[in-house]
Amino acid sequence: MRPRLKDVAEHAGVSIKTVSNVVNGYPHVRPDTRARVEAAIAELRYQPNLSARNLRSGRSGVIALAVPDLSIPYFSELATKVIEVADLRGWTVLIDQTQGERDKEQLVMSGIRAQLIDGMLFSPLALTPEDVRARTDQTPMVLLGERVGGGTLDHIAVDNVTAAHLATTHLIGLGRRRIAAIGAQRAARAATAEQRLRGFRQALSDAGMAEHAVAGVSDYHRADGAEAMAGLLTHNPPDAVFCFNDTLALGALRTLLSRGLRVPQDVALIGFDDIEDGRFSTPTLTTIAPDKAHIAEAAVGRLAARLAATGHEPPQDLCAPHRLIVRESTAG
Amino acid sequence: MRPRLKDVAEHAGVSIKTVSNVVNGYPHVRPDTRARVEAAIAELRYQPNLSARNLRSGRSGVIALAVPDLSIPYFSELATKVIEVADLRGWTVLIDQTQGERDKEQLVMSGIRAQLIDGMLFSPLALTPEDVRARTDQTPMVLLGERVGGGTLDHIAVDNVTAAHLATTHLIGLGRRRIAAIGAQRAARAATAEQRLRGFRQALSDAGMAEHAVAGVSDYHRADGAEAMAGLLTHNPPDAVFCFNDTLALGALRTLLSRGLRVPQDVALIGFDDIEDGRFSTPTLTTIAPDKAHIAEAAVGRLAARLAATGHEPPQDLCAPHRLIVRESTAG
Repeated sequence: MRPRLKDVAEHAGVSIKTVSNVVNGYPHVRPDTRARVEAAIAELRYQPNLSARNLRSGRSGVIALAVPDLSIPYFSELATKVIEVADLRGWTVLIDQTQGERDKEQLVMSGIRAQLIDGMLFSPLALTPEDVRARTDQTPMVLLGERVGGGTLDHIAVDNVTAAHLATTHLIGLGRRRIAAIGAQRAARAATAEQRLRGFRQALSDAGMAEHAVAGVSDYHRADGAEAMAGLLTHNPPDAVFCFNDTLALGALRTLLSRGLRVPQDVALIGFDDIEDGRFSTPTLTTIAPDKAHIAEAAVGRLAARLAATGHEPPQDLCAPHRLIVRESTAG
Repeated sequence: MRPRLKDVAEHAGVSIKTVSNVVNGYPHVRPDTRARVEAAIAELRYQPNLSARNLRSGRSGVIALAVPDLSIPYFSELATKVIEVADLRGWTVLIDQTQGERDKEQLVMSGIRAQLIDGMLFSPLALTPEDVRARTDQTPMVLLGERVGGGTLDHIAVDNVTAAHLATTHLIGLGRRRIAAIGAQRAARAATAEQRLRGFRQALSDAGMAEHAVAGVSDYHRADGAEAMAGLLTHNPPDAVFCFNDTLALGALRTLLSRGLRVPQDVALIGFDDIEDGRFSTPTLTTIAPDKAHIAEAAVGRLAARLAATGHEPPQDLCAPHRLIVRESTAG
């Protein structure tokens, strides 16, 4: 038989009202109580009765996740995590791919589809802080990734400067002395790239080293990484490269191996994102892993709190953890 | 200045009415005329005035694409193509990830979100023909991939049996004699797997050969391919393997290389899907490439025709082309 609210309440040892508060995303539930209820929901595979709830709340039960590019595995993996977490609240997630184009991102920002959805998670690439401040649509929105807001919206991001510093320091610790970066981007959509470049430069500077080279790319796909790596090999090749995402690193890896260079012996490589691909390449790819599950949970949690909020709560700025995962491309 | 309908008409050498018919997806436009108008739309970067159109038509301008799993690159690449093609008609695409779970697919089929969208492209994994025939929702829907319909809906698929036959015949042509397959699946969600297995067996039988081994998998990710390959190596290893998709093949490749086996000298590998990853692995991956652009165009075109249709037109069954792309993993 389908589990009911009552079953979840008994399983978690709380009142039905408390379960209802958690399911509907109301604030003022103690974190440990919330965790216990969510564990019970997951264990019993409880699914809220959506149509009843939607009739009551006037809500669609649908949220949107807008990302630049699903063919960048970071975004498809993040989407999968968001769907899992939203599922626990009985929410359906629809995904909107903007290609990082400013006009499409402005369309998202303007709430043109507000009648369709209860709330929105949005990872913009091209928007400016002015675009965000100029927003008039009232649909709850949580920003992911780059800090574009003027502090007017909830926002969750990895500390890219610190993470890039960690990646670069790892390469320095291997004794490499000609360390290059791949992934600089033109200003218009460069928030992530700029922060990772800053961390790269700070780490080198902290170690008293000069940067060997920085290669720009127009996009973050494998082909861009392969081409940038070929450029770096034309004279005085690097002995280590920090690529600003894993797909760039996998493209760079292809160029190195196809030229007969050994990774990591000749050139050590580190990426960023911890996508599945890098766990199965040869060599496997060292990377910085942002905690995608944490990002998804925090984002959906903030949205739930906004949907339940009655008054004006100041926007929150949350930082998601990251860690270094050492694999064969630096420690082979 | 923003191009107008009139500019597109002049550029294509047709009437404004014809451009309007194409933009609104009406049938009875000659294919060459439609192609000329669509080329003019693309060249001038014409964007239909959506809000005016939506007010007139009572439509949202939003279609949905439901796929099992965006972390399978085939689906994220197909989604990108669908978004490109839909963009030409001024449609926004929202993506719904079902995980291939029957209850979520039934939710899609039941049209629970029909008020949100004008039409739907749906690539189901777990649904039965009965589920499709039992559908009562009237939202136009085009099925992609497996043939689950009882002929009640438009449907576009690759000929998987012929394509798998081609892949296997390529391995036979290399002189391999111990040819295995990776990718068989349990019956409930096995439509693609079953067709590819049938093509594999037919090709071997046509060549008077016995199958060496068939490895089952629970999913189509790299980890599944890596594990299945390890299983095949436990005794009497194959000298060639047809993997039923590219991510399985990339997982299998990792297992082979990490055991010191050479690809293709010791084991030749072919995949299916032609995802970006396989163009940058070392060795690069031989594959069967379904024509994703053709699938996206045909799917969006059928949906447009359904939206414009007044009477009852019988559902169409369309077959998308595929081709063999030989790369280093069989021809290194």
